[in-house]
Amino acid sequence: MTLTISTLDDISALLARLPEADPAASAAVAAREPRLTKPAGSLGRLEDLSAWMAAWQGRHPPRFDHPVARIFAGNHGVAALGVSAFPAEVTVQMVANFQHGGAAINQLCRTFGIDLDVIALDLDRPTADFTQEPALDPAGFLAAFQSGFDSVPEGADLLVLGEMGIGNTTPAAAIACALHGGDPADWTGRGTGVAGSALTRKIEVVAAGVARHRGLAPLEILRALGGRELVALAGATVAARLRRVPVLLDGYVVTAAVAPLEAARPGALDHCQIGHVSAEPGHRRLVAALGKNPLLDFGLRLGEGSGAALAAGLVKAAVACHTGMATFDEAGVSDQG
Amino acid sequence: MTLTISTLDDISALLARLPEADPAASAAVAAREPRLTKPAGSLGRLEDLSAWMAAWQGRHPPRFDHPVARIFAGNHGVAALGVSAFPAEVTVQMVANFQHGGAAINQLCRTFGIDLDVIALDLDRPTADFTQEPALDPAGFLAAFQSGFDSVPEGADLLVLGEMGIGNTTPAAAIACALHGGDPADWTGRGTGVAGSALTRKIEVVAAGVARHRGLAPLEILRALGGRELVALAGATVAARLRRVPVLLDGYVVTAAVAPLEAARPGALDHCQIGHVSAEPGHRRLVAALGKNPLLDFGLRLGEGSGAALAAGLVKAAVACHTGMATFDEAGVSDQG
Repeated sequence: MTLTISTLDDISALLARLPEADPAASAAVAAREPRLTKPAGSLGRLEDLSAWMAAWQGRHPPRFDHPVARIFAGNHGVAALGVSAFPAEVTVQMVANFQHGGAAINQLCRTFGIDLDVIALDLDRPTADFTQEPALDPAGFLAAFQSGFDSVPEGADLLVLGEMGIGNTTPAAAIACALHGGDPADWTGRGTGVAGSALTRKIEVVAAGVARHRGLAPLEILRALGGRELVALAGATVAARLRRVPVLLDGYVVTAAVAPLEAARPGALDHCQIGHVSAEPGHRRLVAALGKNPLLDFGLRLGEGSGAALAAGLVKAAVACHTGMATFDEAGVSDQG
Repeated sequence: MTLTISTLDDISALLARLPEADPAASAAVAAREPRLTKPAGSLGRLEDLSAWMAAWQGRHPPRFDHPVARIFAGNHGVAALGVSAFPAEVTVQMVANFQHGGAAINQLCRTFGIDLDVIALDLDRPTADFTQEPALDPAGFLAAFQSGFDSVPEGADLLVLGEMGIGNTTPAAAIACALHGGDPADWTGRGTGVAGSALTRKIEVVAAGVARHRGLAPLEILRALGGRELVALAGATVAARLRRVPVLLDGYVVTAAVAPLEAARPGALDHCQIGHVSAEPGHRRLVAALGKNPLLDFGLRLGEGSGAALAAGLVKAAVACHTGMATFDEAGVSDQG
């Protein structure tokens, strides 16, 4: 499926016709699960995960043969305001590290057999400083959304989403605050490691961005306060829904990037699980606002899709149990009396 | 290393000379970790896990080339008292299922490349009813301990421990209550699915066992209230410490089986992580009493080592990150200012 997105209305039209979970696949899971050689319900969330994979793949048995990870990278005007512990040139350096296989996400994808692709978005052209003007103009927003949308291959069994962008927990905090309200300080964390006056400065930047762009619709919030990699993540999430690919979201930046979809169209993230809850306090708050229950709580705060890729190992195990286990009849095991 | 255990004093002597974590391996981890291309500490518990593997393997870099799972099966006199939702013949049927590759643990071990062995312990000879007499006599206890001790291969990189035994959450609850005190009802859960009057009966059985065998030393508690698979789990845990193999414990039964070691010799479980916290409420209580922080909270209550095997995927990922990532220098990435 190729699709060219030319206006914000095109995105709204896509959101209006999102497919739902497949009831036939769900029914097939529900019929098989109680016949497997274990007490009913005893695999806990592994059972939920295999049911989720089948329902959103629209297929029974669910598959984990072609999981993919897509990591989007972008640079941010607000990075020049001193909101990160690392200099902005690290974004392009880390993209090279991804391409050479040296980053955490490379090791995690290798561990679980996940096909990794990194999409760098105009790294030499940071977005505008959102305290002064919208981070992206309409054309830049649509181009980034299309990049994400086009990155999701037909036939993928699972999409792991991640990002890299020095300074991008600042737009994440601003989007979360703009969507869900409250004190900017409660949404703003240490990111890669800012503290003291730098953290105070980061909170001021978030507050200024939110104040400047009040009263916008959710997708306009994403354009005004986001960045190219965040917009691309939203595009990939919509494409995955249309292509029947379940999605594992990563931490604060990825969750904030897709939260406007849920605000624009409740249920738009029903095909997504949150791989882990980040050490960044705003993530726990945002996850709660979205009503999601992350799979892992491991104190990660790296980004790159690391928490989502780690959780993909759990999904792989869930699919293996549901598809590979013997039934009571096959194994000659006595069922519960 | 072969070692014949002839008396309880032999076990006490082993506990008195347990090796500690290797400071040189820990120092090597601490030197490498901050040089990897990520903000310091940003891999959270993955960093703790790779450090734990190195320290207890006594080797840097740590390895995940030869992980093994050992699942012990036994039958219990108390099963005849109606404490389980399944009949006792299911133990031998499930052992056959393990041997034919049809159980959850088979799928999980295959997913993460774990070598699985199942050790059935005199399934045609249930232990004695512990409400009337000790579950095992001294010879039976030592034989089971030796079976577990001998099951841990030299050169294993990680030991995943699991069990199968219809009725065995009843001895688990009794051991936990005998060691840590409190109301037997607080330590007794639904196991494979008992409820109502059957759960009331199970609590009475636990209470009767604890009352009959009061005032014993920790290893004698294990002999009086345990079962062959529980005693073997304790033996395997001691052998793993001596052979420098880090251990992933599973749920309530495995944790209760090894808890007497910690009571007998504080620190005896320092080489063990708890793979997951079970849906069985007594497990959360026991984990807290041991001061451990389980890796997963996934609502599992199957046993078979399933939660520990699932957590082994996280350990595999941790080792891959620590050993495979590029350093800032290697990747040409700018470090924090």
